[in-house]
Amino acid sequence: MGGNQGSAQEYTTDRFADDPAFAVHEGGKISVTPNRSIDSIADLALTYTPGVARVSSAIAGEPELARRFTWAPRVVAVVSDGTAVLGLGDIGPTASLPVMEGKACLFKEFGGLDAVPVVLSTTDVDTIVETVAAIAPSFGGINLEDISAPRCFEIEARLRDRLDIPLMHDDQHGTAIVVLAALRNAARVVGREIGDLRVVVAGAGAAGVACTKILLEAGVGDIAVADSQGVLHAGRDDLTPIKQWLVDNTNRSGYAGTMIDALRGADVYLGLSGGSVPESAIAAMAADCIVFSLANPIPEVDPDMAARYAAVVATGRSDLPNQINNVLAFPGVFRGAIDAGATGITEEMKLAAAAAIADVVGDEVRADYIVPSPLDRRVATAVAEAVAACAREQGITTA
Amino acid sequence: MGGNQGSAQEYTTDRFADDPAFAVHEGGKISVTPNRSIDSIADLALTYTPGVARVSSAIAGEPELARRFTWAPRVVAVVSDGTAVLGLGDIGPTASLPVMEGKACLFKEFGGLDAVPVVLSTTDVDTIVETVAAIAPSFGGINLEDISAPRCFEIEARLRDRLDIPLMHDDQHGTAIVVLAALRNAARVVGREIGDLRVVVAGAGAAGVACTKILLEAGVGDIAVADSQGVLHAGRDDLTPIKQWLVDNTNRSGYAGTMIDALRGADVYLGLSGGSVPESAIAAMAADCIVFSLANPIPEVDPDMAARYAAVVATGRSDLPNQINNVLAFPGVFRGAIDAGATGITEEMKLAAAAAIADVVGDEVRADYIVPSPLDRRVATAVAEAVAACAREQGITTA
Repeated sequence: MGGNQGSAQEYTTDRFADDPAFAVHEGGKISVTPNRSIDSIADLALTYTPGVARVSSAIAGEPELARRFTWAPRVVAVVSDGTAVLGLGDIGPTASLPVMEGKACLFKEFGGLDAVPVVLSTTDVDTIVETVAAIAPSFGGINLEDISAPRCFEIEARLRDRLDIPLMHDDQHGTAIVVLAALRNAARVVGREIGDLRVVVAGAGAAGVACTKILLEAGVGDIAVADSQGVLHAGRDDLTPIKQWLVDNTNRSGYAGTMIDALRGADVYLGLSGGSVPESAIAAMAADCIVFSLANPIPEVDPDMAARYAAVVATGRSDLPNQINNVLAFPGVFRGAIDAGATGITEEMKLAAAAAIADVVGDEVRADYIVPSPLDRRVATAVAEAVAACAREQGITTA
Repeated sequence: MGGNQGSAQEYTTDRFADDPAFAVHEGGKISVTPNRSIDSIADLALTYTPGVARVSSAIAGEPELARRFTWAPRVVAVVSDGTAVLGLGDIGPTASLPVMEGKACLFKEFGGLDAVPVVLSTTDVDTIVETVAAIAPSFGGINLEDISAPRCFEIEARLRDRLDIPLMHDDQHGTAIVVLAALRNAARVVGREIGDLRVVVAGAGAAGVACTKILLEAGVGDIAVADSQGVLHAGRDDLTPIKQWLVDNTNRSGYAGTMIDALRGADVYLGLSGGSVPESAIAAMAADCIVFSLANPIPEVDPDMAARYAAVVATGRSDLPNQINNVLAFPGVFRGAIDAGATGITEEMKLAAAAAIADVVGDEVRADYIVPSPLDRRVATAVAEAVAACAREQGITTA
């Protein structure tokens, strides 16, 4: 029998030949490989029956042996319902698969973890929670991915209560961890404490909520969060539970107008919304301001324009300096949590991850180097060590 | 970061060192591997964002492109709730993992298919059906494994109705396919037509039911099926729906006593029950009888004793001739069904698989060679071709 690579040759002159992205995806991007080959009846009798029965029997008697004799504890399920895929929106489970396979590649390349895409034919919150809970014994961690807000908040919270393995919605927390790391170093560049910065967060979806929460935990006191209807404030009558939480915990200055109003004199713009911000709004920010404009592929603030006003500019783009890329966080976060046998991923572990990412840059920090390169292999190791140490300190480990 | 092999060296002098089965399981038996490495920002931008968005977008517009640009169509989920694992019984999902990993190794080694263990924290039929249906877009096939009877019948039937991908409970149909292949060749050895054989099936669980069904489909007219309470007949008041079906479709001779009674003068004993059969019962079978005693590791009929009375003896053991091993069926069955883009696995496809297995033996057939070796690489190819051709003939393919 052949392998599972499809037959690339039959497609070489087709309509996808001009885009190398399609060539990279031919036949899929990942494979399952046996760790040892089966060349004899003796191999077969150890890998499968009757030998496997002795291993299963031992685990039945001592469940903790599964950590040593099965693959599951080092496997992360990358779970999506395909409702909020990149900038493409609700494209469904099948079309989301290439993203989940890509994530699996990154988990292995950077975290040394196996990862399996699990895309779902349902968008119902209850069904998703029951499904992930049902398959959880197959895995050592759950990475929720590209699930639309506000459903993502409830799904993550309910699964965190149900399961005792590391679990994280990466669009929220991966982004938040890297944004905090970048803001720590940007603050160093402009000689400020992050607690003194006034921040405007544009976007109250998955990433906006999580970034706001981690910035609050890191000590940023003055944050205004805006959605498409303007700044979130107590006078709004269209607030979901999570936006009500944001109103209760942000906007000390009491902004009630547009995001543009709030930007006047602000130190930090954090764009997680798409759309576009006019030059006048950036020009009206404080001196030595910081612009993180993360919409991809087109940032909300044109990076060249931003550079005329801001001391530090970061985007989500790989062709510009200071790329805010989740790959700096999730492989090390899960690896550290799994190495420690952690029963979950706490806020403290996320803060430790952000500090570790910022520290890889260290004293080399400058305006165009506030986060490490996504290819910097030191990052996942540093993040994993910091996260594992934090989990052990918190006493939430089983290993 | 290291790989996912665990650290074998730290265990070399431990209590598991004497059993090579544990060494083979150290760190798990399978891994997920990226098909291409990520060595540059350009690689990253093709494997993940922004390049992956173009592929996802293309699939969103033309879902059939998923067959070419994702891994899922060639991935089989090996799904178990751990309720009927080998001879160990209900040992739960975690302890069943080594078996599912072993199955994944065999899918790759023999079928060239990727397979992923999915073990479930629930034994509830409704929840299992909903869970498997929810995760189905992640996979190209579903292999149900080690799920106890009679739940396995309902779970398989409901999922077959719900899903349009190949799905099979291997403990039923894998076993049945190989048993039919073996019986075809055993009949040739003794110069009989299988339609003329009188068969006694000991065991009315998953394998007993499926073997009986496929033997009926293959033309065996006279079959008596026994469970622990004796032969199934119309006078019994303890029949589950599936046993009632067996009563309605078997036991033409109207046996109402024990399995031992029915064996008197029978041509074939098919043991799928465990326990032990006395020598007197085998001695009372017809001349040139056939004994398939598949309990593992201890056959119901001692093979040396059986050889004194039977013309052909087969067991489930790898250290004896004529091993009835599911690995002769499932890799090729799924590979053929997936290659053809089949929307399911039909009875005709199973019969085609059995014929293909028997035909690999061909004219070399003899009393101690009625099925190919489990390592015979010709088998999966022959089975896959026969199954794919059958699916195409039946017009149940989408590819």
